[in-house]
Amino acid sequence: MINWLEEKLCALNVTSSMNQSEGFTRLGYSDEEKQAHTQFINIANELGLHTFEDEAGNQWAVWKVEENAPTIGLGSHLDTVYSGGGYDGVAGVLCALAAVKTLKDKQITPKKNIAVICFASEESARFSVSTLGSKAVSGELNKEAIKTISDQDGTTIKQAMEQVGLNWEKVQQAERAESDLEQFLELHIEQGKILEDQGFDIGIVHGIARPIRLSVRCEGMANHTGTTPMNNRQDALVAIAPLINFVEQEALKMNEREGASIVATASVATVKPNAMNMIPGEVELGIDIRSTDNNLKQELYASIYTFCESVEKDRNVKVMITMLVNDASVELDKEMQGKLFAVSKSLGYKTISMDSGAGHDVMNMALKWPSGLIFIPSHKGISHHPDEFTEIKDLANGTKVIAAYLESEVVG
Amino acid sequence: MINWLEEKLCALNVTSSMNQSEGFTRLGYSDEEKQAHTQFINIANELGLHTFEDEAGNQWAVWKVEENAPTIGLGSHLDTVYSGGGYDGVAGVLCALAAVKTLKDKQITPKKNIAVICFASEESARFSVSTLGSKAVSGELNKEAIKTISDQDGTTIKQAMEQVGLNWEKVQQAERAESDLEQFLELHIEQGKILEDQGFDIGIVHGIARPIRLSVRCEGMANHTGTTPMNNRQDALVAIAPLINFVEQEALKMNEREGASIVATASVATVKPNAMNMIPGEVELGIDIRSTDNNLKQELYASIYTFCESVEKDRNVKVMITMLVNDASVELDKEMQGKLFAVSKSLGYKTISMDSGAGHDVMNMALKWPSGLIFIPSHKGISHHPDEFTEIKDLANGTKVIAAYLESEVVG
Repeated sequence: MINWLEEKLCALNVTSSMNQSEGFTRLGYSDEEKQAHTQFINIANELGLHTFEDEAGNQWAVWKVEENAPTIGLGSHLDTVYSGGGYDGVAGVLCALAAVKTLKDKQITPKKNIAVICFASEESARFSVSTLGSKAVSGELNKEAIKTISDQDGTTIKQAMEQVGLNWEKVQQAERAESDLEQFLELHIEQGKILEDQGFDIGIVHGIARPIRLSVRCEGMANHTGTTPMNNRQDALVAIAPLINFVEQEALKMNEREGASIVATASVATVKPNAMNMIPGEVELGIDIRSTDNNLKQELYASIYTFCESVEKDRNVKVMITMLVNDASVELDKEMQGKLFAVSKSLGYKTISMDSGAGHDVMNMALKWPSGLIFIPSHKGISHHPDEFTEIKDLANGTKVIAAYLESEVVG
Repeated sequence: MINWLEEKLCALNVTSSMNQSEGFTRLGYSDEEKQAHTQFINIANELGLHTFEDEAGNQWAVWKVEENAPTIGLGSHLDTVYSGGGYDGVAGVLCALAAVKTLKDKQITPKKNIAVICFASEESARFSVSTLGSKAVSGELNKEAIKTISDQDGTTIKQAMEQVGLNWEKVQQAERAESDLEQFLELHIEQGKILEDQGFDIGIVHGIARPIRLSVRCEGMANHTGTTPMNNRQDALVAIAPLINFVEQEALKMNEREGASIVATASVATVKPNAMNMIPGEVELGIDIRSTDNNLKQELYASIYTFCESVEKDRNVKVMITMLVNDASVELDKEMQGKLFAVSKSLGYKTISMDSGAGHDVMNMALKWPSGLIFIPSHKGISHHPDEFTEIKDLANGTKVIAAYLESEVVG
C-alpha cells in the first residue's frame, strides 16, 4: 500500500516528484485542475470504478453494488492555491481511493454503494469564493450571486467553467437529492500542528469553525508629520492600533473558559496615505474570528463593536465596521464521530477529538447529509505553501481508518 | 499690490484660476516646472531684474546695484507634489518678487544687490530626494550619490535634468561661493495650523526640525488564522502594534518638559501576507521623528530601540531597526530672527517665534549663509493637497515684512 500511495500521490499531483520548490498551482476550473482530474479518472478506472463528471465539474468514481442500495460518499478536492502544497485536498482523494482499493484487495462485497468524489474548485485562491463543487452538490451554490466574480485576469467563474467544457446553465443541476447519499466522509491534512505537536496520529473533527470576518475602517485626518503638533492630530493608526491587541487578548481570555475554543486575528492592515511624512488618515483592518461555537464569535464581535465605539469617542476619529462574512459554524454528525473515533482507536492510533479551524468541502455536505471529517498530521502545520508535507505513513494510517470504517458500514 | 499678487499668483501657477479641484502637478525638472519658471522670468523682467539660469536649473533674478556690493538672497521654489496646492513654494517666490516691486515702487536705491532665486525641484515627490536646487547652490549636492535615483516612470535624475536642457556634468558648478551672498531669506506657507489657530499673522522660524526616519521590521511566522491556536502564534502585527502607540505616548511625554518640542509618527505600516486567513508573518513600520533638538530625536530613537528589544523577548519575533534618515536639524540665524521679529511687530502684525516641522530650501542655504525663514498662515494647515489655501492678505503681509526687512538692510 505504501508504494501505491507514493505512486498515486505523484500521479494526482501530475508530477514525478513531490519535491517542487515552487509547489503546485492548480487553480479551480483550470487546465491544471483538469489534468489532475484525468489522473483521478485513470486511477478510479484501474480500480474498476464507474466514473462520470457532474454538471459542476466534480468527478465521481462509483463502486456500484446495487441500484437501490444506500451510497456512502467519500472524497475531497485536487485544486490548489497559487504555489500550494501537494497534500491539501489530494490526501483526501488519495486515501478515499486507497480505502476502496483496500476493500477490493480484501475481496469484500459491500452491501452499500461507495462513491469517491473529487470536488472542483475548493480553494478560494482564484475566485475568492471557496468550495464551489461541493456547494453545487449540496444545493448551496447560488449561480446568480457569483456569476460576475472574476479572477485576477478578469476571467469570470462562468467563463472559467465554460472553458473547461461545462454548461453554465446546468451547473445547479449538479445538486444531489438527500436520498442519493447516505452519508459523507472526508479526510484532510490538519493544516495546523496540534496532531504533530501532541503526538497524535488521527484527529476526529467534531465541528468546522467558519468565520466571522470584519472590515474595520478608521478615518482620521491625514496631515504633515512635521508640521502637525502631537496634541492636534487625528492619527487613524494610533487610534485603531490597540484594537489589534484587544482582539488577541479577548480571544485568549475567552479560551480560558471551560470548553471554549476561539481564534481571532487582525490579519489585514492597510494604511493611507502610507507615506513617511504623512500622518495616517485612514486605516482598514481585516479581522477573522473562528469558533465552532457561533455564540462565542458573536460575543467577540460585540466586544469589538464596543471597543470601536470607545475609540471613536476618545480619539476623534470615525470607525465603521462592516461584516464581510458571517458563516454559521458547522457541527459534524455525532454518531459518525463516535464510530470513527472507535475505529481509529481499535487500529491502535493515538486519536484526538478536535475542531477544524479551516473550511472544507465536508462543511457543505454536512448541511444535507450526516458527515464526518478525519485529520492526519501536517508537518509543522505548514499548508498553502510548497513546504506542505505529510508522511506517507500518515496517509496509510488515514487510509486504514477510512477502510475500517467503510468495512464496518458495508459488511454484516 | 493685492491685485498684482492675485495676478502673479495665477501666473506663477500657469493658470487663470486658483480653483483647481485636481490641484497643481509640477514635478521637479519637468516641463510643467519649466513653464512656471518661464512665468517667473517674465515677471522678473517686467520688474527690470537681470535673469539667468544656473547649472542646476535654478532661476536667478538679480537687482544689481554694484558689482562688489553684498547680495541678499531671497526666494523659494515653484515645483509641487502630485496634485499639490498653488502656495507651497509659490508664496515665497511671489512675495520675494513683490517685495522687490515694493522697493522699486518706492524708488529706493538699495546699497546692496538683491537676488530672487527660484530653486528647482524642492519637493521629494518625484525623486524621493528633496531640495535639489538649493543643495546645488549651497554645495550640498552629491551628484554621484543621486544619479541613479529614478522617478516612478524609470527616468533618472540625470535624464530628467538633461530633458530640461541641463548639462549633468556641470550641475555641481551651480555652487556659489560664501562671498557670493551675504544672507538668505525665505518665506513659506506654514503647512501647519498654529498661526491660524492661535491668531498670528507672521511666524519667525528659529529652527528647522529635520527627521530621523526608522524602518522597524518585525518578523514572526505567517500561518493559517483558523488552524493556529491563540497560544501558539508568532503574530508580527500583534507583536509590533504597541510600538505605534508607544511612539505617540513617548513624544507626548517629552513635550511636557520645559521648552521641549518633538513630533513622532508611525506613518507607514506594511503587513505580509495581508490576507484575511493568514496570521501576519511580517510587518514593516516607518517612523518619522522630528525636533529642532537633535538630542530629543536621539533620545526617542533610543527608547524605541529598547522597546523593540522587549518586543523581541516577550513575543518570540525578530525586530530589526534600520535608520533610513538621520538629518541634523538646522538652527537659523539668531540676529536675522531678531530683526525679522522686530520688523514684523513694527508693522503691527501678531508675530510668533516658532519651529518648522517641514524642510525647506533655506535649510541648505543656512549651512553656508546666515539665513531666515518667515511663515504665513495655511488655512486649516492643509498642504500638499488641492485644498491648500492662503489668503491674499497674508501674502501681502508677508511681502510687507520682507520689503521692510530689505529696506532696513539696504538703506541708510
